[in-house]
Amino acid sequence: MKALVLKERLWLELCERNDPEPGEGEAQVRVACCSVCRTDARMWQSGHRDLVMPRILGHEISGYRENERVAVWPGLACGECSFCLQGRENLCASMRILGFHLDGGFAEYLAVPSSSLLPVPATLPMELAALAEPLGCALHALDRAGVGAGERVLIYGGGTLGLFLALGAGDRGAIPVLVEPDREKLRMSLAFRTRFAVGSAEDPSALCGSFDAAFNAASSPSTIEGFRKLRPGGRYCLFSGLQELPETAPGLLAELHYRELQLLGSYGCTRSSMAAALSLLDAFSGDLGFLVSRRLRLEGLAAAMPEVTAGKHFKMIVEF
Amino acid sequence: MKALVLKERLWLELCERNDPEPGEGEAQVRVACCSVCRTDARMWQSGHRDLVMPRILGHEISGYRENERVAVWPGLACGECSFCLQGRENLCASMRILGFHLDGGFAEYLAVPSSSLLPVPATLPMELAALAEPLGCALHALDRAGVGAGERVLIYGGGTLGLFLALGAGDRGAIPVLVEPDREKLRMSLAFRTRFAVGSAEDPSALCGSFDAAFNAASSPSTIEGFRKLRPGGRYCLFSGLQELPETAPGLLAELHYRELQLLGSYGCTRSSMAAALSLLDAFSGDLGFLVSRRLRLEGLAAAMPEVTAGKHFKMIVEF
Repeated sequence: MKALVLKERLWLELCERNDPEPGEGEAQVRVACCSVCRTDARMWQSGHRDLVMPRILGHEISGYRENERVAVWPGLACGECSFCLQGRENLCASMRILGFHLDGGFAEYLAVPSSSLLPVPATLPMELAALAEPLGCALHALDRAGVGAGERVLIYGGGTLGLFLALGAGDRGAIPVLVEPDREKLRMSLAFRTRFAVGSAEDPSALCGSFDAAFNAASSPSTIEGFRKLRPGGRYCLFSGLQELPETAPGLLAELHYRELQLLGSYGCTRSSMAAALSLLDAFSGDLGFLVSRRLRLEGLAAAMPEVTAGKHFKMIVEF
Repeated sequence: MKALVLKERLWLELCERNDPEPGEGEAQVRVACCSVCRTDARMWQSGHRDLVMPRILGHEISGYRENERVAVWPGLACGECSFCLQGRENLCASMRILGFHLDGGFAEYLAVPSSSLLPVPATLPMELAALAEPLGCALHALDRAGVGAGERVLIYGGGTLGLFLALGAGDRGAIPVLVEPDREKLRMSLAFRTRFAVGSAEDPSALCGSFDAAFNAASSPSTIEGFRKLRPGGRYCLFSGLQELPETAPGLLAELHYRELQLLGSYGCTRSSMAAALSLLDAFSGDLGFLVSRRLRLEGLAAAMPEVTAGKHFKMIVEF
């Protein structure tokens, strides 16, 4: 099979590899689409402490098990620990991730546990089915923060994940407001934001009052300031991990205490949130096509990586 | 009536005041016991940005409404906002606190809303009933963090509040472990810890493995390090507000994200947690007498304040 292999930092090479042989309980999946995550671009650019190269990246995958259309949950969990048994398999201590610990979707085939395959609704295009993983992460974060109907939700970042958080929040009857400084990005999501009644910080009235929950779908440390916009008892979800704290952070712990705020992490997604994502993508597939900014062949991905790093567009999707 | 008035920082004066007249919906309470909180000592020592003097301090109060034995919830909430209506009256924006915004329990009488009075069980000594407020704060924090049966709970601080957190955790079937560096304090709680199977960090095996929840009942910034001892998905409750962050704090946000931890604040208590505290005090009153380290008259409190600040003992209680 053809596979795009990360051999070293900044060196992606198209290779010929043997087709992966499914082991016991596994299935062979012929990849239809694999969308590109900023994480893929970051690993290409800078590597990662736990990334062993050579490695085939890619973890946002739709494909075929024989003739069946499937989306791939990109985790391999033990299935037996307390987290797995509680449906929190994203916290499994022995978790290995496709496209990171194991070879992923920038290849024609992969072998994955059958239990990681989710059926794709008949009317959902395969390129949107590849977005079930990122949307699943957004829905998982909304679950973690317990977002419910009527709640005001502040979202930092108007990229794909910020829009997915807004979509999921709106679907629960909550009222999402985006903070995105890039006017061009806001312009690109205008129809979506109008269709789904997503407020934006461009309209100052949208930011007045206090929020029940906040999410960072952007990695700037300043996004942590959103906790100051929460009502007492409000929740701030660290959807992106932050490495640094802004200078105002010391006040954070005192505010957390006196106003009974919550700061909570969300990492990855579970099978059940990915299944919910597939339903939601199917319900609104007519409104979400704009999220595919560019389609390309595996041969073209290496040259396109700087564009992903720049983060000026929504999703780039490798088609097979 | 006699009242101990904080006139200025470090100046407590025994004064003669008019008995407070209860307004509509209020009752006059004759104070039986008012225990002394470290917060009282801190206001005596350093004042507080929002404390207007002269002020009668004291918010851990038991007393009599005519002949009825009552404990006093020391908040005055509006009763009408969304927080009050959800039973989260401790978050009411117009909350005023007895012994802080309003005159408190270091006086023979006070006038409080009848709705703030809780009946004291017939067999509970009034000096222990005065501890319903601090125990109510501990139970509220355990509620906030959702501590349940079988969970391992790490508690920083082996003073009264740390022991109350351990008592409440044990009562829910959880397994509490205390971290208290002061060996003398540990010695004073030995019988209690044995009786209620409270582990201590003195026994290294008690600290092995990971905790489901952690609480800081001590104000040292280093207590935040407890989040590193949590299992994935674990909860750290800021029971004390921290003003500073230790140098290792930047890693906190990344750990919160990747291990889906929660950092949540708990502040004060509600009527329902104080009512639960009265039941618990009554159930174990025979084991809790050691928490009253010293009884004194109102006249003696000014001279005893440095002892409270030093924090070497458990509770000091003013009897009337």
